[in-house]
Amino acid sequence: MPDLVTGNAAIGQSGGPTAVINQSLAGIVEGLQTGLAASGQVKRIIGLRHGVRGLLKPGAEGFVDLTTIGKDKLEAIAGTPSAALGSTRDKPDEAYCEKILTSCRKHEIRYFFYIGGNDSADTCRIVSEKARAAGYELRCFHVPKTIDNDLLENDHTPGFPSAARYVTLAHMGDALDNASLGGIKINIIMGRNAGFLTAAASLARGGQSDGAAPADRSPPHLIYLPEVPFSTDAFLADVEAVYARLGRCQIAVSEGIRDAKGEEIAPKLMGTGEVDAHGNVQLSGSGALGDGLSDLVKKGLTPKGGKTPRVRADTFGYLQRCWPYTSPVDAEEARAVGHFAAELAAKGDAAVSTILVRTSNAPYRAECRRADLAAVARRTRHVPPEFIAGSNDITDAFIDYCRPLVGDLPKLERL
Amino acid sequence: MPDLVTGNAAIGQSGGPTAVINQSLAGIVEGLQTGLAASGQVKRIIGLRHGVRGLLKPGAEGFVDLTTIGKDKLEAIAGTPSAALGSTRDKPDEAYCEKILTSCRKHEIRYFFYIGGNDSADTCRIVSEKARAAGYELRCFHVPKTIDNDLLENDHTPGFPSAARYVTLAHMGDALDNASLGGIKINIIMGRNAGFLTAAASLARGGQSDGAAPADRSPPHLIYLPEVPFSTDAFLADVEAVYARLGRCQIAVSEGIRDAKGEEIAPKLMGTGEVDAHGNVQLSGSGALGDGLSDLVKKGLTPKGGKTPRVRADTFGYLQRCWPYTSPVDAEEARAVGHFAAELAAKGDAAVSTILVRTSNAPYRAECRRADLAAVARRTRHVPPEFIAGSNDITDAFIDYCRPLVGDLPKLERL
Repeated sequence: MPDLVTGNAAIGQSGGPTAVINQSLAGIVEGLQTGLAASGQVKRIIGLRHGVRGLLKPGAEGFVDLTTIGKDKLEAIAGTPSAALGSTRDKPDEAYCEKILTSCRKHEIRYFFYIGGNDSADTCRIVSEKARAAGYELRCFHVPKTIDNDLLENDHTPGFPSAARYVTLAHMGDALDNASLGGIKINIIMGRNAGFLTAAASLARGGQSDGAAPADRSPPHLIYLPEVPFSTDAFLADVEAVYARLGRCQIAVSEGIRDAKGEEIAPKLMGTGEVDAHGNVQLSGSGALGDGLSDLVKKGLTPKGGKTPRVRADTFGYLQRCWPYTSPVDAEEARAVGHFAAELAAKGDAAVSTILVRTSNAPYRAECRRADLAAVARRTRHVPPEFIAGSNDITDAFIDYCRPLVGDLPKLERL
Repeated sequence: MPDLVTGNAAIGQSGGPTAVINQSLAGIVEGLQTGLAASGQVKRIIGLRHGVRGLLKPGAEGFVDLTTIGKDKLEAIAGTPSAALGSTRDKPDEAYCEKILTSCRKHEIRYFFYIGGNDSADTCRIVSEKARAAGYELRCFHVPKTIDNDLLENDHTPGFPSAARYVTLAHMGDALDNASLGGIKINIIMGRNAGFLTAAASLARGGQSDGAAPADRSPPHLIYLPEVPFSTDAFLADVEAVYARLGRCQIAVSEGIRDAKGEEIAPKLMGTGEVDAHGNVQLSGSGALGDGLSDLVKKGLTPKGGKTPRVRADTFGYLQRCWPYTSPVDAEEARAVGHFAAELAAKGDAAVSTILVRTSNAPYRAECRRADLAAVARRTRHVPPEFIAGSNDITDAFIDYCRPLVGDLPKLERL
């Protein structure tokens, strides 16, 4: 038996919620209930209301007791999108982490599980180091979650497959809507720094090309990622070329597109924007980027026969991360990474991030492994060059990578 | 046997597509294949590309031959969202209808089926009258379709239940997203003149109330329909009251909200807007109304403790009408109204709109009946007073009406 400290366990959820973040919560609880709690090392399993904020509330106001939560209730929570404990956008600095540690000591928390992105991994890292420096034994576990798919070490992150499934289904239906009435359709997709979710729009393509020229792609005809410098002139030329050939054009655009200097396009088109706690202009929850690109096309496109084309933009917004129906692979893996963190805790591990590694693509198989917190914390993974084709498309390698993650897709037919 | 004319049949799809409009197309084709085509009265079944526009193309350029389309292909088309034949926004006037009649004579079309809203019913009416006046026997059939649910005579219209299902699922997930991070969330829903689809957001409510006060509604906390005069001041007061109590507020807003004078709110908040062929400002395909309401709240809300709340808006856009997964009831009924139109044609009927009538609510049952074109054409059905509660909610009577239409909903759980 490893040398294990006895105390309470705390679990928090952080950042933008996903459709499967509660699967990870359930996985941790289940893993503790059958592991460290059963063996007596964990006395109480504490859910933190709104992540680390729950630790900073006076008394135990920010706590939900999950020690004896029943299997049925836990399953129902696992199948529910968004963070059941509540989430937070707080990105703790050294002083904030000091307060977290103080609260952990006060409440005898010896196991700290934080489900989130690279900021949450960093919180785990700082708190873990502070605890060690203070001689307080606190074992910290980061459990990955982000629809952006931008964590290093992971083949992909829980939450991404379900969001990718939504984006795919949306583009499948929307492409046919666009085909029925013609014109130019712009879809804005989440992902400020990484274009994985925008790239997932490509899964909407069937095997067949679209239109007269055999080389034509099926919709989405154009895909713009934050990893590829965005030029307004090139964008207009791309759109005009597709529209001239087909009389329509479906375009998938990441909210995070940037110019050659690395400056975001959105704030320029949006005028003054709201700035969040991280100093970033608010991109989601506003249709301004889509409307700005629409205006660009309306004004900039040389119309065929003098008639301005129909131009529409949809900003996918929050629905893409909390749609109640998930990718089955995603639900299973999100549960597994949580459970695995509890298993690592029972083995005496500490200061660790659980990660997902793909071991086979056909048939698809992945497994949970461990990584050091520092390898995941703060750093951002981008869409790699082998997934990017030219300035406005993705490669078949990306489709091979992404397709097993999203689950069965409906078979659509055209006349 | 009724006295039936022999010739070709033409089928068109018109207006904004829906997720089940191809079910109606399949129903008509199936009904003709086993009815009038089998008996020899219908020689060819012609699909019209982009509705009546297909009739105006030179030669038979706008035609798709569906006479012998196979069962498997037809089923695959039926299960595909959006108009497989293509659609049109054209609203034919007398001169346009004269051209339609000329084309029908030229191509020996004796049966004309038009799947669409009240404008399409009107096209059927005008063309039918012109044909009679010209002594040309042409039997016209309107088959209902609109996510707006705004056709008279119908209990509800095919396309509405699937869109209502999308709006419901979106609000279920989004309510939990809003709960996890707090703040104010505004969702803009389609329906310029009728608020049925916006009202469907109410189905996202569970049986339980939300928050401390037992009288509090579950989210969406506020619902604004075009049928109820919208006041900016009242809106701000409503939002402030919910936000003060709960620290969050989910709001469902119809794109067609108007002030007490009947003037639309959107153009005022949007500045200059695009005007469509019907003389209406473009509401869909733009996030401007949501962003305008967000700005109103950000500027107008008296903040608790001096901090401006997090305010986000999503405009549901085109995904709500072409999501690939439909309501099973909707798919079945959309098929049935199309089939019924072909049956009426075989019985010698003419100048008719097929309608859906509910015959029982528990268990839910509906059946197809006939109505005169003039009873459906051009006129708009609004949300009736018995479905409206005060200035910002709907009644249980609406939920009783709408719930059987949308199919099974996921069971979500909260901690």
